Amino acid sequence: MSVKESKTELFTVAGTDTVESGPGSEVFNSRKIVTTFERYIQPCLAEVVGCALFIFVGCGSVIENAGVAGSIQPALAHGLALVIVIAVLGEISLSEYSGGHFNPAVSVSVCISGGLDVILLGPYILSQMVGGMIGAGLAKAASSIISYASAAGGVFNVVKTSGAIGSATVAEIVMTLFLSLVVCMGAVNGRTRTPLAPLCIGLTVTANILAGGSVSGGCMNPARAFGPAVVANYWEYHWIYWVGPMAGALITGSLVRLLLGDQKTRLVLK
Amino acid sequence: MSVKESKTELFTVAGTDTVESGPGSEVFNSRKIVTTFERYIQPCLAEVVGCALFIFVGCGSVIENAGVAGSIQPALAHGLALVIVIAVLGEISLSEYSGGHFNPAVSVSVCISGGLDVILLGPYILSQMVGGMIGAGLAKAASSIISYASAAGGVFNVVKTSGAIGSATVAEIVMTLFLSLVVCMGAVNGRTRTPLAPLCIGLTVTANILAGGSVSGGCMNPARAFGPAVVANYWEYHWIYWVGPMAGALITGSLVRLLLGDQKTRLVLK
Amino acid sequence: MSVKESKTELFTVAGTDTVESGPGSEVFNSRKIVTTFERYIQPCLAEVVGCALFIFVGCGSVIENAGVAGSIQPALAHGLALVIVIAVLGEISLSEYSGGHFNPAVSVSVCISGGLDVILLGPYILSQMVGGMIGAGLAKAASSIISYASAAGGVFNVVKTSGAIGSATVAEIVMTLFLSLVVCMGAVNGRTRTPLAPLCIGLTVTANILAGGSVSGGCMNPARAFGPAVVANYWEYHWIYWVGPMAGALITGSLVRLLLGDQKTRLVLK
Amino acid sequence: MSVKESKTELFTVAGTDTVESGPGSEVFNSRKIVTTFERYIQPCLAEVVGCALFIFVGCGSVIENAGVAGSIQPALAHGLALVIVIAVLGEISLSEYSGGHFNPAVSVSVCISGGLDVILLGPYILSQMVGGMIGAGLAKAASSIISYASAAGGVFNVVKTSGAIGSATVAEIVMTLFLSLVVCMGAVNGRTRTPLAPLCIGLTVTANILAGGSVSGGCMNPARAFGPAVVANYWEYHWIYWVGPMAGALITGSLVRLLLGDQKTRLVLK
Repeated sequence: MSVKESKTELFTVAGTDTVESGPGSEVFNSRKIVTTFERYIQPCLAEVVGCALFIFVGCGSVIENAGVAGSIQPALAHGLALVIVIAVLGEISLSEYSGGHFNPAVSVSVCISGGLDVILLGPYILSQMVGGMIGAGLAKAASSIISYASAAGGVFNVVKTSGAIGSATVAEIVMTLFLSLVVCMGAVNGRTRTPLAPLCIGLTVTANILAGGSVSGGCMNPARAFGPAVVANYWEYHWIYWVGPMAGALITGSLVRLLLGDQKTRLVLK
Repeated sequence: MSVKESKTELFTVAGTDTVESGPGSEVFNSRKIVTTFERYIQPCLAEVVGCALFIFVGCGSVIENAGVAGSIQPALAHGLALVIVIAVLGEISLSEYSGGHFNPAVSVSVCISGGLDVILLGPYILSQMVGGMIGAGLAKAASSIISYASAAGGVFNVVKTSGAIGSATVAEIVMTLFLSLVVCMGAVNGRTRTPLAPLCIGLTVTANILAGGSVSGGCMNPARAFGPAVVANYWEYHWIYWVGPMAGALITGSLVRLLLGDQKTRLVLK
Repeated sequence: MSVKESKTELFTVAGTDTVESGPGSEVFNSRKIVTTFERYIQPCLAEVVGCALFIFVGCGSVIENAGVAGSIQPALAHGLALVIVIAVLGEISLSEYSGGHFNPAVSVSVCISGGLDVILLGPYILSQMVGGMIGAGLAKAASSIISYASAAGGVFNVVKTSGAIGSATVAEIVMTLFLSLVVCMGAVNGRTRTPLAPLCIGLTVTANILAGGSVSGGCMNPARAFGPAVVANYWEYHWIYWVGPMAGALITGSLVRLLLGDQKTRLVLK
Repeated sequence: MSVKESKTELFTVAGTDTVESGPGSEVFNSRKIVTTFERYIQPCLAEVVGCALFIFVGCGSVIENAGVAGSIQPALAHGLALVIVIAVLGEISLSEYSGGHFNPAVSVSVCISGGLDVILLGPYILSQMVGGMIGAGLAKAASSIISYASAAGGVFNVVKTSGAIGSATVAEIVMTLFLSLVVCMGAVNGRTRTPLAPLCIGLTVTANILAGGSVSGGCMNPARAFGPAVVANYWEYHWIYWVGPMAGALITGSLVRLLLGDQKTRLVLK
């Protein structure tokens, strides 16, 4: 086993198959047999738990920030929480299927780029939506009624009129394109995969919220939008946070498959 | 010795036994014999010193922030100080018992997850409480009387009425669950252990304070609550900061042992 | 292949030639043949895409920050976005020519220091300017007309009178000297090359904006200045953001080649 | 050569002797002969250049922050700039003597802990003071006269009356103790040395300024105090910033040599 691969096992969040990876893996794993529980159930559980904690922190930071100018507090809270859950839960599965997405748009772009088996796409997105509802519920339970109401429970309510739909949708598309490109290039595409991926992915969310927080809220994640919307029962312009991120994810998938991927990932121009 | 293990030695904060780890360890260690001093006394000294410095910075940042809106300053100060003490003091012991907790709730969850010998649990918690008092005392010595008083010496005094107990306790439970899960998955559980663990653990504290700072203060750590409480002699609702974090740690221990741990850590569903 | 080199492949952003690097590279690369597309076109595409996303975030954060005191929000947004694009796009090429500059001044200093073939310098700078225009255009599309106008679209309009030219130019020279020195020492010069380079390079931008944001805007990057200037058609004192950064890059090149480089990089005092 | 050592070469900032380290070092170094220039002159040049850039950013951030509540901007600017110069200039020398201190108090504590030859201590401190003056001069040249004056050029002028001397001196002692302990444990002491050291050292400065910025200014570094004091000719209570940091460094040296160091570093209790 090469050194490079053993580093990959330790760090990367997607597309690694460590089952047959050789002597290095003996250090951590008492057995090599990967059970069905570990291959299919644990990654979904990780999506539920990680989404719940990430969205708990996200909603909490928006509730804390109500009435404050600037978006530094929510930007840091969302980004750091995402760094953390990816870093510590992303490698829960020894299977060849990646984990640690915590975002339906990311799962779609990873699936297009070849980093996720398509039969896991549905269960992942479902798990993320369940996690989002749990996280938003916990944030409600950990807030006073007044502060919860003043921030509308952390839902995305930036868009108030139809005139703001255009720029908000563009913002969600571009921001999600950035985020999912970082996931696909930093954690799926072989040549550019990096141990700094969890850090980069989370900090992309921070940078994007700092750039576009007042335009669309800086969602980039349908599960992040869906959970609080259910708990607060707020559905105004909710579709933007599905259409925008999913469109961004599709553009990313095309870019990676057609232009930016390595010889294994790229479908053309070989 | 595999590359993977040598990386582990350099980075991880828990559960590594490097005594018999082979040729790589000769580089740093002149001798292989681990003395009683190194096995039992040094880890406790590290807990005292690390807690004192972490809690000095924590109390200082709260005193500095008095009267300012938002919790970015205390959130960054607590999180970064914790990253640092874990990264540079966590590996002080060559023994198989982990170190670098600086938090009684973390020690409990690590102990449940199998990363700490139970006979060290008492000495660790005692060391952390002593460190907390030293740190809070140093913060008092390094403050003017006026600014010290205006922040109540960095104690947790967010909860003023019994009506706020519920949300504050839920917040402490969920935040400590998040923190201790990051420790147990990122530094104890073999499959998900990561060299980024010190960074992740500290930044979880930052993210949580950004999310829940105004609800409960964002303590997650009985020693952080206890030290300043002794120095300022302030005990209102102090029990919340023991009950909440310890409950969170117990939930984490159960999650890791029953659902999220790898085959070696998990007790069921093998 | 040594471990050291394999780490370099994973991390560094410049001057690495992994084509003949041996067994480790087989893990990620199905074939060893580097096509013309990969050697010349992909790095330029990466410069376009990376610059567009980096400058989208940069302009967005300035538009968001309009009217707020302090430059923490733009400083973090620019720095983190740069960390990310370097980390995930810098290694796109398997060739011996480095990538991930996203800045004409950086490309010049890397070229002087021996980390970029001179025939790629023109295409790189052109790609960066194209990327800058795309990014600034996306930022315009993702903003309301009012907020876009209030921040002049993220152009550098700090210098209002000729009396401020001197200090602004000095600031740009010194800040770009710092930034390009970090690139050349952290990612090109063999002895000081570090896996933390992407992080260091981006955070230099953050630190510099925190230090000189109100003097010159903290540009350090002609492409960052050019793109928004085209989109907003604002050209007052635009030359400062070419002259200052390029002068800084030349000083860095001299420092590295004459004094700070290792025996291979240094031209004198061997 | 073991993997561990090759990692150490790439990362650590102190006490590594890579001259005879074997095959891995051939990758980067064309020759093994370390000249006098590289052994003695380059490390001092690195101290001058690094200090100048670090202190340029430091003073600039204080000038930028004049009139703003809180110390987040100077805290981040100082900390990040220090992370960067340590990471990219700390390994400039192939000799067994460490570099990348940029702080006389750190050099003293590293020297006591066995990580720096005592004959280099004087030249290092002199280089740091020269660098401090250059950095403060550049910050003056890059500021308008009004903003330079409003922040007193970035000098430490927090202590206005003799009543504030006590707490300011205690603050400097404890903060420098923290900082130098992170250097000595994270980059000198073999067992706890970590690749995250540059990050940890710089972020200690950030955390400390967030905790004690309004008490003493959060200096921890006589060169940081000396340079701007010369340029602005401001010497009120200047001695605090020599006595406090040096006392902290001495306490750190004692702690490491007597209690916290490994068997090679520790002088007693073996």
